[in-house]
Amino acid sequence: MSRRSLRNDILQAGLRVMFQSGYRGASVRDICAAAGAPQGSFTNHFRSKEAFAGEVLDRYFDYLQELVAQALKDDTFTPRQRLKRYLDIITSKLERDGWRIGCLIGDLSLEASSHSKRLRKRLDAIFKKWRTPFASCIAAAQSAGEVDSRFDATELAEFLLASWEGAILRMKVERRPAALERFKTIVFETVFQKPRASAAARQRPMHKGSTAKSKRDRK
Amino acid sequence: MSRRSLRNDILQAGLRVMFQSGYRGASVRDICAAAGAPQGSFTNHFRSKEAFAGEVLDRYFDYLQELVAQALKDDTFTPRQRLKRYLDIITSKLERDGWRIGCLIGDLSLEASSHSKRLRKRLDAIFKKWRTPFASCIAAAQSAGEVDSRFDATELAEFLLASWEGAILRMKVERRPAALERFKTIVFETVFQKPRASAAARQRPMHKGSTAKSKRDRK
Repeated sequence: MSRRSLRNDILQAGLRVMFQSGYRGASVRDICAAAGAPQGSFTNHFRSKEAFAGEVLDRYFDYLQELVAQALKDDTFTPRQRLKRYLDIITSKLERDGWRIGCLIGDLSLEASSHSKRLRKRLDAIFKKWRTPFASCIAAAQSAGEVDSRFDATELAEFLLASWEGAILRMKVERRPAALERFKTIVFETVFQKPRASAAARQRPMHKGSTAKSKRDRK
Repeated sequence: MSRRSLRNDILQAGLRVMFQSGYRGASVRDICAAAGAPQGSFTNHFRSKEAFAGEVLDRYFDYLQELVAQALKDDTFTPRQRLKRYLDIITSKLERDGWRIGCLIGDLSLEASSHSKRLRKRLDAIFKKWRTPFASCIAAAQSAGEVDSRFDATELAEFLLASWEGAILRMKVERRPAALERFKTIVFETVFQKPRASAAARQRPMHKGSTAKSKRDRK
């Protein structure tokens, strides 16, 4: 096996083992065993377990960014629909894993950030990069009148990603999708909803005269 | 030292060590060292680390329930104000710990639920018990017209607690309170807000159930 592919195998095994056992629970011995690699080979490829975990995290985030692009760059949907589509895509991935495995970014945020400054800083950088395409999509939804513009789009993007991590946390405890579906239903009917005045006008017969945004809603 | 107080010391030390190192990272040796107890004494008091962690979790939840009661049973505030007050009380506790320590329920939900069925079931029971006083308070806020009644109060309570765990997760990565304050600002101006129509019309809806139907009829 080539040096490069062995390195790759160890990184891939690291993702599986860290999903199961966390950062501290994943021993170098377990990771190498899962990769079918001799234990001594780990130090040939990685300076430390901390550096290794950083690389595993980066690869996981690369994968996640592909899913973000798949959902948020699809112009056949409106910006608000694209946001929901991202959460639906993630839901289908979580279903595939039997609701047993969540998000490595969330897992390491709670577990590793208290004892690795390096991983904590890397996670913070990931959250900031992660929110960027969401902030753009939310801003587009606001411009289109699909989402209330009261809040800054970046603030809403941060809120969405952090709260979604909370829903995944609850899902892991229940091993069922209820928390994910509840989250989507509630936030898309409240936070990611049209401005209050026009929504009220659209819903209430008594405000029939002022439905400026209703036409756009029905497209 | 009495047998009973040694047991208590080990449990208290367990909380501190598990906050720092997680469930798997907290060794019996570290816990006993932090308690100033001989390592052999652990097995005199606890059947297993798993059983021990369950007791630590229960004690932590007892403490949290006192904070819940302190916030939600204070009749000098309206039901909606009491909900916000709970989050403010927790924020002050998190500040005291320099934004470094989060919530043990959240930490163990992500870390321990994948390899301890017993802890996972205990966490699920805790979430269900935790949401009950929140559901009552939200129902009271809905009856008082402070919070939209579109969603079931228990669903909103689950949403609140899970999303708040997400905000704490983000706080741990940043080591600052931005995610907590953002969460409170956004949810109390959207999810936990008066019914949409009444916000526009400055009055409560007359026929709660009829809005969806009227909207459909007009299309």
